[in-house]
Amino acid sequence: MNIIGIIGLGLIGGSIGLGLKKSNFGDRFIGTDSNQENALHAVKLGIVDEIIPLQDLILQSSVIVLSIPVDGIEKILPSILNKISTDTVILDTGSTKYPICNRISSHPKRNRFVATHPIAGIENSGPISADSDLFYQKKCIICDSEFSAPDAISVVNKIYSMMKMRMIYMTSQEHDLYIAYISHLPHVVSFALANTVLKKFKNKKKFFHNMMGSGLDSTTRLAKSKPETWLPIFISNKENLIQSIDFYIDCLNKFRNHLIDQKLYKIDQYMKKANDIKDKKYV
Amino acid sequence: MNIIGIIGLGLIGGSIGLGLKKSNFGDRFIGTDSNQENALHAVKLGIVDEIIPLQDLILQSSVIVLSIPVDGIEKILPSILNKISTDTVILDTGSTKYPICNRISSHPKRNRFVATHPIAGIENSGPISADSDLFYQKKCIICDSEFSAPDAISVVNKIYSMMKMRMIYMTSQEHDLYIAYISHLPHVVSFALANTVLKKFKNKKKFFHNMMGSGLDSTTRLAKSKPETWLPIFISNKENLIQSIDFYIDCLNKFRNHLIDQKLYKIDQYMKKANDIKDKKYV
Repeated sequence: MNIIGIIGLGLIGGSIGLGLKKSNFGDRFIGTDSNQENALHAVKLGIVDEIIPLQDLILQSSVIVLSIPVDGIEKILPSILNKISTDTVILDTGSTKYPICNRISSHPKRNRFVATHPIAGIENSGPISADSDLFYQKKCIICDSEFSAPDAISVVNKIYSMMKMRMIYMTSQEHDLYIAYISHLPHVVSFALANTVLKKFKNKKKFFHNMMGSGLDSTTRLAKSKPETWLPIFISNKENLIQSIDFYIDCLNKFRNHLIDQKLYKIDQYMKKANDIKDKKYV
Repeated sequence: MNIIGIIGLGLIGGSIGLGLKKSNFGDRFIGTDSNQENALHAVKLGIVDEIIPLQDLILQSSVIVLSIPVDGIEKILPSILNKISTDTVILDTGSTKYPICNRISSHPKRNRFVATHPIAGIENSGPISADSDLFYQKKCIICDSEFSAPDAISVVNKIYSMMKMRMIYMTSQEHDLYIAYISHLPHVVSFALANTVLKKFKNKKKFFHNMMGSGLDSTTRLAKSKPETWLPIFISNKENLIQSIDFYIDCLNKFRNHLIDQKLYKIDQYMKKANDIKDKKYV
């Protein structure tokens, strides 16, 4: 019997559960979540058939989906590997990959683990936001696949393919460096912008309300993201993130200096370069 | 006969033309645009009935809609006021208001002018993007209204109300300060983020393409905006914009320092504060 065990029944774990059920993959779905309310919702929403204790889930599952915050993954992955049988497959869905892969690099059952990052987050969270189509036509990055057993890779491939994701392979170090720029930095930029504006309008909520609609909505969308998810990601990818913030501040200061010096041509060029983001080659 | 003259047939001027036609306001629509292609499109799209020379438009129009870049508005507004009759109404749609209002503050026909900012921009531009419903349930800021004649205010109110906008009144100085934070800063933040990422991925377009989808889309939406529109806005609101960029960099540095010092509690608080942006009181 193909038993799917989901550890962490939030947006990502929940969406994987719903997606696999929809594809008729898995005979039974069991799950666990440190948040009781999430666990109850997950059963009600049909994400899993039953909530069972973590230790039982580890022993019973054929495939374990580990979708909790990245610090949690780092912490419990070694002990899960200790306990699983040699044909269990375990995958994680964390947004940073190197610290996790590094942590278990010399574990005797390393090859049962597949490090993945399905790129499909939204600012909403919890099982209530889970959606069987969340991953439709999105990308899934699989890291350091040479250290995973071919059968484990094949199961993981099947799981994500059924949810219509496209697989991309790279090292965990490449992943963490580039994802800092593509995902973690935009979150920081958005949190900082929200805080700047909220501080400025602290005693002027009416003004704020009256002036919304001019671009702040999209740039602060990510500022609605959950601290519980993002704090561990930021800490886990600290070095790359600081590098990216420094590059960003340099880039911002370049604009600021052009503006102070009123270098119209330079500001124009700066914007024209940025316009390339709409280039088909990029997006 | 109620003749509407539109100077600048881009997104905003075009949408006003279409909106007024839809509401059956105005007997004839005439327009002009320094870009011949825009002008031709505007006629084809039914935004105006005829393209005529600027000087004729000024003399023939009962209502003049001035929707060109803000530096252009500042430049030609005094000469338009010189030429209009004392019952013509002229309104502008520029994204900065103080330099424009200041420029004509002592003009003998100052009271025929109404300074407005319909907050409804999108990153697309040109008459081809014009939409009669662009302004539906959006806000329109009217500045320094005490210097406009009551009949002129009343006409402008009618025009925007027909397009279902809600009018907000404030001084041009208040407008420019707050719009720097709500609109101009988010554009700078977005341009800078796009440039940071494009630079990092200069020789790695495939990587970039493979990793998109994790939040960069919304934060760089505004980076697709037109330099022709935004360069004059940035220059025109330079002082307020620099103030806002400095506040923003301070705010970003606060996060960066918390991250370097690994002050988990502070980072958590920082994100929780930013989460307030989703508060109903704000949005």
